[in-house]
Amino acid sequence: MLEKIQSPADLKAMSQNDLEQVVVEARQALLEKTSHHGGHNGPNFGVVEMTVALHYVFNSPIDKFIFDVSHQSYVHKMLTGRAQAFLDPKHYDDVSGYTNPKESDHDLFTVGHTSTSLSLASGVAKARDLKDEHSNVVAVIGDGSLSGGLAYEGLNQIATTGTNTIVIVNDNEQSIAANPKGGIYTALRRLRESDGQASDNIFKALGFDYYYLDKGNDLAALIALFQEVKDSDHPVLLHIHTQKGHGVSFMETNREAFHAGGPFDPQTGYYLKGSNEPSYNSVTGDFLLEKIKKDPRVIAVNAGTPMVLFNQEQRKEAGQQFVDVGIAEEEAATMSTGLAKNGAKPVWYVSSTFMQRTYDQWSHDIALNNQPVTVLVHAASVNAMNDESHLGFFDIPFLSHIPNVVYLAPTNKEEHLAMLDWAIEQQEHPVAIRVPVGPLKEIGQADETDYSILNKNQVTQAGSQVAIFGLGNSYGLAEEVTRVLQEQHGIKATLVNPKFITGLDKELLDSLSANHQLVVTLEDGLLEGGYGQTIASYLGNSDLKVQNYGIDKHFHDRYDRQELMAQNGLSVDTIVNNVLLTLGK
Amino acid sequence: MLEKIQSPADLKAMSQNDLEQVVVEARQALLEKTSHHGGHNGPNFGVVEMTVALHYVFNSPIDKFIFDVSHQSYVHKMLTGRAQAFLDPKHYDDVSGYTNPKESDHDLFTVGHTSTSLSLASGVAKARDLKDEHSNVVAVIGDGSLSGGLAYEGLNQIATTGTNTIVIVNDNEQSIAANPKGGIYTALRRLRESDGQASDNIFKALGFDYYYLDKGNDLAALIALFQEVKDSDHPVLLHIHTQKGHGVSFMETNREAFHAGGPFDPQTGYYLKGSNEPSYNSVTGDFLLEKIKKDPRVIAVNAGTPMVLFNQEQRKEAGQQFVDVGIAEEEAATMSTGLAKNGAKPVWYVSSTFMQRTYDQWSHDIALNNQPVTVLVHAASVNAMNDESHLGFFDIPFLSHIPNVVYLAPTNKEEHLAMLDWAIEQQEHPVAIRVPVGPLKEIGQADETDYSILNKNQVTQAGSQVAIFGLGNSYGLAEEVTRVLQEQHGIKATLVNPKFITGLDKELLDSLSANHQLVVTLEDGLLEGGYGQTIASYLGNSDLKVQNYGIDKHFHDRYDRQELMAQNGLSVDTIVNNVLLTLGK
Repeated sequence: MLEKIQSPADLKAMSQNDLEQVVVEARQALLEKTSHHGGHNGPNFGVVEMTVALHYVFNSPIDKFIFDVSHQSYVHKMLTGRAQAFLDPKHYDDVSGYTNPKESDHDLFTVGHTSTSLSLASGVAKARDLKDEHSNVVAVIGDGSLSGGLAYEGLNQIATTGTNTIVIVNDNEQSIAANPKGGIYTALRRLRESDGQASDNIFKALGFDYYYLDKGNDLAALIALFQEVKDSDHPVLLHIHTQKGHGVSFMETNREAFHAGGPFDPQTGYYLKGSNEPSYNSVTGDFLLEKIKKDPRVIAVNAGTPMVLFNQEQRKEAGQQFVDVGIAEEEAATMSTGLAKNGAKPVWYVSSTFMQRTYDQWSHDIALNNQPVTVLVHAASVNAMNDESHLGFFDIPFLSHIPNVVYLAPTNKEEHLAMLDWAIEQQEHPVAIRVPVGPLKEIGQADETDYSILNKNQVTQAGSQVAIFGLGNSYGLAEEVTRVLQEQHGIKATLVNPKFITGLDKELLDSLSANHQLVVTLEDGLLEGGYGQTIASYLGNSDLKVQNYGIDKHFHDRYDRQELMAQNGLSVDTIVNNVLLTLGK
Repeated sequence: MLEKIQSPADLKAMSQNDLEQVVVEARQALLEKTSHHGGHNGPNFGVVEMTVALHYVFNSPIDKFIFDVSHQSYVHKMLTGRAQAFLDPKHYDDVSGYTNPKESDHDLFTVGHTSTSLSLASGVAKARDLKDEHSNVVAVIGDGSLSGGLAYEGLNQIATTGTNTIVIVNDNEQSIAANPKGGIYTALRRLRESDGQASDNIFKALGFDYYYLDKGNDLAALIALFQEVKDSDHPVLLHIHTQKGHGVSFMETNREAFHAGGPFDPQTGYYLKGSNEPSYNSVTGDFLLEKIKKDPRVIAVNAGTPMVLFNQEQRKEAGQQFVDVGIAEEEAATMSTGLAKNGAKPVWYVSSTFMQRTYDQWSHDIALNNQPVTVLVHAASVNAMNDESHLGFFDIPFLSHIPNVVYLAPTNKEEHLAMLDWAIEQQEHPVAIRVPVGPLKEIGQADETDYSILNKNQVTQAGSQVAIFGLGNSYGLAEEVTRVLQEQHGIKATLVNPKFITGLDKELLDSLSANHQLVVTLEDGLLEGGYGQTIASYLGNSDLKVQNYGIDKHFHDRYDRQELMAQNGLSVDTIVNNVLLTLGK
């Protein structure tokens, strides 16, 4: 049945029984694909019926569907000409894991961060009104995403505009991890428990025409509800209670594990590639938990992705010294400012791509107030997530030019933990640490560096002619370049581990001109606005030449990491050749 | 009476009559100071009674007051040892216009942007709990600021923590301009109109213990309310209805004009320095309004500061083609993405310092989706606002390294409007324009440049030895340097108007090495991460030397603009001398 659906028009011609069969087949295809290929599993199993009903009742792409975060759009893709990408393993990679206008006119936006759908919808609807057109604008947002402030701003604007927009709150009682207990989650729970009848309805308060559907995995009920509100002339909010992972018992019971993940056994629900090897995340989590146990003022702050550092057991151990604010990175940042000001020692851990939501919280709250907040920046590298909506390599231009911030780039476990320890215990600066990406590297020797001496680079080999600055994750590449220059070309380069991203070791740089002709900088982040360019500028009026290596300014999508690095010159051969050219060898 | 108050302890010893006298004197001092000195007038007149009552009932600084945006903290300053700065004109400049921990322990944070107070409070309260201390955390937030998503995130977290935090919603029915009509403003209005009794109470929905006080300028009623909730063991929200500009008739009636402003006649309420001279803002507003009248798809989008471009009359003329989303910059940015995607032509105008709230909306929404949103960036210069919380010179590091964005730097009126016209009518790129800062410069000749040819710099004088790149507002300085080099030193420099911030004219840069030894870049923004450093990096491996001039990385506060420029080398003498040194003259 699914194979026959080339577009939603095919769906509209179907009987109720056929539609039910589509639901069954879609769920089967989801299980096949996600168990073999990985992806966002639970979120999609919860919205199979809803998606079929949406396409049955509404008329996409004239009616506009906007999926928040869009990791729940797999069934939508199946029903809009892309079923093959879920049915045929050879075509699994034909589609991205998110809505993507390059794939289909049914996908309006490239989306991967949460809480944007309502604001996008407010614009789409307003443009429709300006053009005097008539269609439905439908935004689907999860309960987890409702914790983001932008979702609230979007609700306000939709209510203010006052024309047709249908907001669907897909309430599966779960964010990525469990939801926090208060605020909007209290409001949603009271509504669920009262079949939508609770007093103090936040959505009615904001001006929405509110409907509650408890049976959110009941196809007929969904169709009836959508038919009732279709073509409404005012904002409507449908609060629909679904079940994350619906139809797969191990997903229904283990909702955090089955938010997303790699291949798993479709019978037992065991993930195939679990690893118990220590990683940068695990050693960081262990270290932080020890700090927490020893000092009641240390507190781990997180916005919706606690599993990055703490498993559920560790979160329990941390108790009141662990806070998950929901998917609300701005709150995590600004709350941390308040924590530090009043004498706590906050450690906020955040993925680079999601930290992007907090520029002003960094600048105006943490940095302007110069509070000793410690921030662990994860997945900040071209070697981290490679979906265009989840790139992690913009962190240095983003963060490092904000005054007062000390941003550190460790190159191994010992250095990382020494930096973290220093950051937590000092009271002078906001400190961010670019948690290394890649396999854990232990050198077996404690790092005794005094990090309160800011911007002091480590010269790990003193040489001449050329100095190689290998920042953080790129230090290994710098070592390799240094080795090849020595072994194959007899050039003993100076090798530098900068450690500090946010300031230059001017004494070192000034000293280089005595016996160097060239400075090379390597970083696994954006070239433009990055670390290396600050060195190029500082040395611009000197006799030293500078070569900066980093990633070009582009939203690269699902790229091969090694290939992209090489394209940007980040390979031993290219760097060595360029060094030799400049040195005239 | 006011002069005698050295600290809140003095206030606590007073009788009710004395307190009433303090209110009268505080209001008189406000009128004297703001009418002579300028500042945020209306917001402070509205909270005189509230502030006196707060300090009478609570015990600052053990109890913690956090003022949102903090431009309503003047009376708080008077009562915490800083009365002289409001009573003695010689001391008017002793205090900043915002809370400032460097002035007093009663000021917890340096704050100038809205909607942060509740998140800060959530952290301060949580730290108190971790330390097992007992005190009240009191956050004062205006109705206008409640439109910001971070305020909502803060409400959620306060409710989740569940311990003592007292949120005061200072509802004066007005943001900077009039509030939008829907969403949270509907919710507040219904509560006001029902004396707090309306059903669907958003604050109760989020889990707050809610109190309404209609007489928000009644000192006795305020004291009674604060005494009732003091030492609460759970989150409390006090919805207090005040009057902006209370006690001054022309402020009460003209609430937009009396949000803030320069000196005015305290009798008549006429601002003394009104100018009808055309400015960059006025010509931009006029131009945009013409576009709106001619094309129903053009829409002006703004977040809470509409007066920057449109006066109230112009807003009426624009009608449905003008949207003020409230103080919610993220909504403005992401809504604009939706508008453009659905065929409208959004023009979002925003101040540089407030644009800082929208990095991810720029990156993940506008730029990743590559939508033709036009953004007018105001006050982006070291020569704009000079409070440390309102600096506008971080825009280039912030914005220019995001892929797909075209950021333009006009140098005069004709160029600016030509760029704006191109930006609105093209469909290929998100385009931001760095609206010039300073007196309007007209050259009397239309700019016919085809801006669809990206990154093409304008060489206004071809010379040799040294090339001066004067970006946007710094072009005048570049002209001056060029003139002095020619007239006093016989050096005919190459003079370049780069126009494009987001990409280099590589053809031009490559050509310079033929007969130049030095490239100089001038910008009135942050040096680090700025435009010039991209040139230094590009030319790093060439024989050309590069001198970059820009502002050092620091939160400069209430600085003298010329002085700060000069300290950073941005003066004709310094640049000319450095050029001569490098050229060996």
